[in-house]
Amino acid sequence: MSRESVDAIAALRVNAAYYAALADGDLAAMDAIWARDEPVLCIHPGGAPLQGRVAVMASFRSVFEGGGPPIEYSQDAVSLVRGIAFVNCLEHLADQSLAVSNVLVWEGGQWRMLQHVASLMSTGSAVPAPERGPLH
Amino acid sequence: MSRESVDAIAALRVNAAYYAALADGDLAAMDAIWARDEPVLCIHPGGAPLQGRVAVMASFRSVFEGGGPPIEYSQDAVSLVRGIAFVNCLEHLADQSLAVSNVLVWEGGQWRMLQHVASLMSTGSAVPAPERGPLH
Repeated sequence: MSRESVDAIAALRVNAAYYAALADGDLAAMDAIWARDEPVLCIHPGGAPLQGRVAVMASFRSVFEGGGPPIEYSQDAVSLVRGIAFVNCLEHLADQSLAVSNVLVWEGGQWRMLQHVASLMSTGSAVPAPERGPLH
Repeated sequence: MSRESVDAIAALRVNAAYYAALADGDLAAMDAIWARDEPVLCIHPGGAPLQGRVAVMASFRSVFEGGGPPIEYSQDAVSLVRGIAFVNCLEHLADQSLAVSNVLVWEGGQWRMLQHVASLMSTGSAVPAPERGPLH
């Protein structure tokens, strides 16, 4: 398997770990996923851009107060550009779908989240959640 | 001025050129802004992820059928990570604001758009458009 394929698979695994941490409401796991040495950015649906680790982690702390949201994802795809992994996928909540860009950077021997941007899809664009069991 | 500052300013200029092309409904200018050699991604508000140049340019052709939207932007900020420029800003339409991530890659001697992701902000998060004249 090529180095690029290995990197791409590893990036998709971290993308999966992001959704597991989110669904679990696991703040420690979420903290471990985000980059430490680079300027992170997070845009939650409906929200303004959150810049920097302090603001981003505070937003997840707030989200997790009610427990992790019942979220699933599908159609994950990854491109490697100049050593950065660009993942896009769909997120599925109870009756909403979101279009997502997750950007991962190689840091400390693993892929870590540099950017997460989620955009609510209009009803006409929404797609049903995948037919499968819970994430884990 | 440091090389990094020069690169950052140049990236913000291309981000500005993107909004000028959008407001003008100028498909040729928009085409020139997007990367040619890398896998581009565009998520319009409400829409699904559009992957690849053909899908992305088709979406702008469709948007421009009614002329360019009356769009302004504000609060543009840029970070350079591993030679890629990550710009975030707000977009302002008549009565809506959007949170945006624009990612630019250095290609053919200039910054070019690799990803544009726009997420509609909820009314509570929306901010007024800047007090200034039209873009140009």
